[in-house]
Amino acid sequence: MAQLDKQSVAVVIGAGDATGSAIAKRFARGGYAIVATRRNVDALQPLRDEIEAEGGVVHTLGCDARKEDAMVGLFELIERDIGPIEVVIFNIGANVMFSITDTSARVYQKVWEMAAFAGFLAGREAAKVMLPRNKGTIIFTGATASLRGGSGFSAFASAKFALRALAQSMARELGPQGIHVAHSIIDGAIDTAFIKDNFPDKYATKAQAGILDPEHIAEQYWQIHRQPRDCWTHEFDLRPWQETF
Amino acid sequence: MAQLDKQSVAVVIGAGDATGSAIAKRFARGGYAIVATRRNVDALQPLRDEIEAEGGVVHTLGCDARKEDAMVGLFELIERDIGPIEVVIFNIGANVMFSITDTSARVYQKVWEMAAFAGFLAGREAAKVMLPRNKGTIIFTGATASLRGGSGFSAFASAKFALRALAQSMARELGPQGIHVAHSIIDGAIDTAFIKDNFPDKYATKAQAGILDPEHIAEQYWQIHRQPRDCWTHEFDLRPWQETF
Amino acid sequence: MAQLDKQSVAVVIGAGDATGSAIAKRFARGGYAIVATRRNVDALQPLRDEIEAEGGVVHTLGCDARKEDAMVGLFELIERDIGPIEVVIFNIGANVMFSITDTSARVYQKVWEMAAFAGFLAGREAAKVMLPRNKGTIIFTGATASLRGGSGFSAFASAKFALRALAQSMARELGPQGIHVAHSIIDGAIDTAFIKDNFPDKYATKAQAGILDPEHIAEQYWQIHRQPRDCWTHEFDLRPWQETF
Amino acid sequence: MAQLDKQSVAVVIGAGDATGSAIAKRFARGGYAIVATRRNVDALQPLRDEIEAEGGVVHTLGCDARKEDAMVGLFELIERDIGPIEVVIFNIGANVMFSITDTSARVYQKVWEMAAFAGFLAGREAAKVMLPRNKGTIIFTGATASLRGGSGFSAFASAKFALRALAQSMARELGPQGIHVAHSIIDGAIDTAFIKDNFPDKYATKAQAGILDPEHIAEQYWQIHRQPRDCWTHEFDLRPWQETF
Repeated sequence: MAQLDKQSVAVVIGAGDATGSAIAKRFARGGYAIVATRRNVDALQPLRDEIEAEGGVVHTLGCDARKEDAMVGLFELIERDIGPIEVVIFNIGANVMFSITDTSARVYQKVWEMAAFAGFLAGREAAKVMLPRNKGTIIFTGATASLRGGSGFSAFASAKFALRALAQSMARELGPQGIHVAHSIIDGAIDTAFIKDNFPDKYATKAQAGILDPEHIAEQYWQIHRQPRDCWTHEFDLRPWQETF
Repeated sequence: MAQLDKQSVAVVIGAGDATGSAIAKRFARGGYAIVATRRNVDALQPLRDEIEAEGGVVHTLGCDARKEDAMVGLFELIERDIGPIEVVIFNIGANVMFSITDTSARVYQKVWEMAAFAGFLAGREAAKVMLPRNKGTIIFTGATASLRGGSGFSAFASAKFALRALAQSMARELGPQGIHVAHSIIDGAIDTAFIKDNFPDKYATKAQAGILDPEHIAEQYWQIHRQPRDCWTHEFDLRPWQETF
Repeated sequence: MAQLDKQSVAVVIGAGDATGSAIAKRFARGGYAIVATRRNVDALQPLRDEIEAEGGVVHTLGCDARKEDAMVGLFELIERDIGPIEVVIFNIGANVMFSITDTSARVYQKVWEMAAFAGFLAGREAAKVMLPRNKGTIIFTGATASLRGGSGFSAFASAKFALRALAQSMARELGPQGIHVAHSIIDGAIDTAFIKDNFPDKYATKAQAGILDPEHIAEQYWQIHRQPRDCWTHEFDLRPWQETF
Repeated sequence: MAQLDKQSVAVVIGAGDATGSAIAKRFARGGYAIVATRRNVDALQPLRDEIEAEGGVVHTLGCDARKEDAMVGLFELIERDIGPIEVVIFNIGANVMFSITDTSARVYQKVWEMAAFAGFLAGREAAKVMLPRNKGTIIFTGATASLRGGSGFSAFASAKFALRALAQSMARELGPQGIHVAHSIIDGAIDTAFIKDNFPDKYATKAQAGILDPEHIAEQYWQIHRQPRDCWTHEFDLRPWQETF
């Protein structure tokens, strides 16, 4: 009986303070039970408080998305104890910039683990639970470096290109089975503490809408999820009006 | 005085029975006065009736979008007599398929005039009226052939690639001046009389949402227009779930 | 009888002083009878003298490549009086830069006629003579603007995108019929009088190989033509080492 | 003294029986001392015999290209004992095809280690020795899956996209420092024992040049390496004439 009452679940892998949290809140408002994950579960407390203050349902879980066991366990736990997963948003970034000779093997691998391998694990586990239902939405968050390998970005662009390949491959396989796989290209600075602290000049353009508002990104993800299946977007860019590209 | 009361205008260049009309209706519902154009103004009567039946404001104008004088005159007339143009949707298609040796110079040129040159005229005139206001949305409708020159599509793909170049160039110039320029990639058959009559097997997939519903395309265009300026999409694809790509 | 002795012909449409002439000379050295065309036939005299001084065979013809009759006549004349056409290089450029509102309809159309429509005519006539022989090479010269519609390049990029679409479409149709269609992306300034006169700072980088040597471009085209048919390149970029991209 | 006599070295990482070996032989013929590596050094004996039979210089080394220590050691050894490295060709493939749900984490990681991480190690070590000389050529071997994430290719395309990002990033950083970084797109079956055994119908098209001859690929790599620095190609495709794309 309880089974029948279970709310559909939207899982946000990498629910960072800005974009990931905004996406979680938007899908909570849309009626989904949210599962928000992050390596450090304590860091999810503010998000939990916000969603609950709005009357939403939220579960916060500490999970290292780069570990296969952890991810397999996460999806099993959600399906068993929380509800059927209808939406998975993969939102882990790992932007670093080094000249090629200063890029350590460790950095090259770690960036790939976070931005590509974890995306693969999330995407595969999502496919497993969605395929029997022929229904679901999976959105991968990309960046400028998903399309262009700029100087100094060998590690980051390699990982982001890999994630884009994954998204394309999954879209082509899973689309005809009813699962909507999309990939965003976020091309610009987002309103985050990181930008505020490290790029104050860029942050100052916030007054003219020169940096991306996480809530606006979240709204776009929501719209993508809401597309009827005759009219699906696979890839879309998001960029402030002032941004050169 | 009257000036102050004028409703903002959304112009649909190439308001065909399916997509163009659906877009016009969506923007009418959103509060815009619609100007719908087509070579044959009589063909716009059903659209006019539908928008008026819903209480919307619509002006239908016969206009050959390939003629510079006609397009310059159109934009002048609208600005003078109807209202300030805030949205321009360019929606003229011209899909033809011929082997290269069977492609006449006339066909190659006519397809370009319809799908690219008319888009240039519309885009340029839109820019002229929008730039002093630093505000506006211009959306160009693209297709699969905007990204890939397939065998048999030398004329169509040439024109669609050209339109995409125009959209990119305008986005890069006009974005930082407050004008949102977007380009869609519509990758699949649309629910039109043409598909019904000529591709009945494809049309039959409508029951499984295998062809694009014009109203769903229109809703996406509306969402693109509604994006806040810190979070603009330049390019997005729309495709039925079953479609291979 | 004479027929049997006829040398195979390489046609260079748009044999400008730099790249086009260098290509003509390279293919003459490779054993082809050259037909070099340009609107002003007198401007081809230096090229004629150079090829003849090296013992090559060259025919110079005045031809407006934008006129269908002229192009059809050109290919007929060559096949009848000179020899079988095995290679066609389309090398007409038309780089202009204007803001969108300063781009006249005349400019937009003229650039397209030169860079795209003339390419279509050349490509189609080439296909007509090559198809019965299932043999031939057609190379279209592209540019940075073939891949990216930059601000100010609405006319030029539209035409170059169109030419690229043509090249793709022809490659996909004609490749399996034995005709090699290729498209170059020349991304950088070429050693021309135009660059010398108008961009002296750029020209000064010639000492460090900062601008493209037309003879080196020509050599690449020759190599593309020489590729065995199991190993054809469709698209390749050429760029000075210092060039940012 | 001996130092002065040392021949410049071309290193082929992943000198498989077909393409890698053909490249090694071509560069040996061009006057380079060859270092050919493979996990199993014994498998390199035939290549060694062939190059020596032609009077070339060749060193075969067993090396697991996925291990940082091994790769760092390899480059140190070559520079110290063999000669200055002028050319590095990275040629390790790892084509696999699985549905997303059948793709094990192990496969996803192993394919990335072979096709992307090993490429990073090779590219970085190449950059280290080439930068002080402002000279060198690095070529990465790509595939159809470098540009398109097809259904079933999530692991392979992810790795190949990553390698392409690496190549782009390195080209943009190292080009202006005199190092030529290129990336091939090999789009078709190659004449290998694998194709012969597993795809006999495809292999039968060899009679019509329907599969790529490794020696022809090798010749293209040689031509890329020989480009003067005002006229470098970064990316080029190679495809049999019959191949659809």
